[in-house]
Amino acid sequence: MVDDAIEIRALLERWAKAVRDGDMAGILADHADDIVMFDVPKPLQSRGIKAYRGTWELFFGYSKGGPSAFNIIEIDVTAGDRTAFCNAILGIEESRLRLTVGLRKDGGRWVVAHEHHSYPADIE
Amino acid sequence: MVDDAIEIRALLERWAKAVRDGDMAGILADHADDIVMFDVPKPLQSRGIKAYRGTWELFFGYSKGGPSAFNIIEIDVTAGDRTAFCNAILGIEESRLRLTVGLRKDGGRWVVAHEHHSYPADIE
Repeated sequence: MVDDAIEIRALLERWAKAVRDGDMAGILADHADDIVMFDVPKPLQSRGIKAYRGTWELFFGYSKGGPSAFNIIEIDVTAGDRTAFCNAILGIEESRLRLTVGLRKDGGRWVVAHEHHSYPADIE
Repeated sequence: MVDDAIEIRALLERWAKAVRDGDMAGILADHADDIVMFDVPKPLQSRGIKAYRGTWELFFGYSKGGPSAFNIIEIDVTAGDRTAFCNAILGIEESRLRLTVGLRKDGGRWVVAHEHHSYPADIE
């Protein structure tokens, strides 16, 4: 279980580095074909790895090739035998993003099956 | 595993009903003391059951006693032996909320250890 948590943190650190490097293959390397993405901008949800890839193409479009900072600042990993979830805070430039990740073990290997990215809304 | 998924769906349906009924004890009934909440409005995160309760007091303040609709429209549950996660779409009045829930089994019983609520941001 401890080993699983370490493995999952390492997976997410590789993913964050791939985002910083603008490395699309690295971003997708540990993701399930049926991933469900709740991204910061619309749409409400993106289902499947092609749609997930599209959310990153949009992101790199906005940030003109990639952010200079995309770092995991805090992370809690809760891992069981074949499912796990993480809640994390990411630093993207000066902003603080909330990230939740759901993972499952496919053929002995952890893969990301769900991501939820958001900023708190400005509500008066 | 199927039984766990059924149990978790039932837990979340009870929770949604408690929100519709403005029943705070029901909202908190299956939640861990150390829950980490990423809510729609600020703050960035709320840690612990007291802070989680505070997010619902805020919600009931906004919605003047509770929403007339707070319904689980879609839900995917991925359950393992002692951890699980769900991604769901909720209908709150006319709006569509993204909800991710992380659960763990404590003493043979599923409890909610993490929630992430958001709307897609309006980005031009």
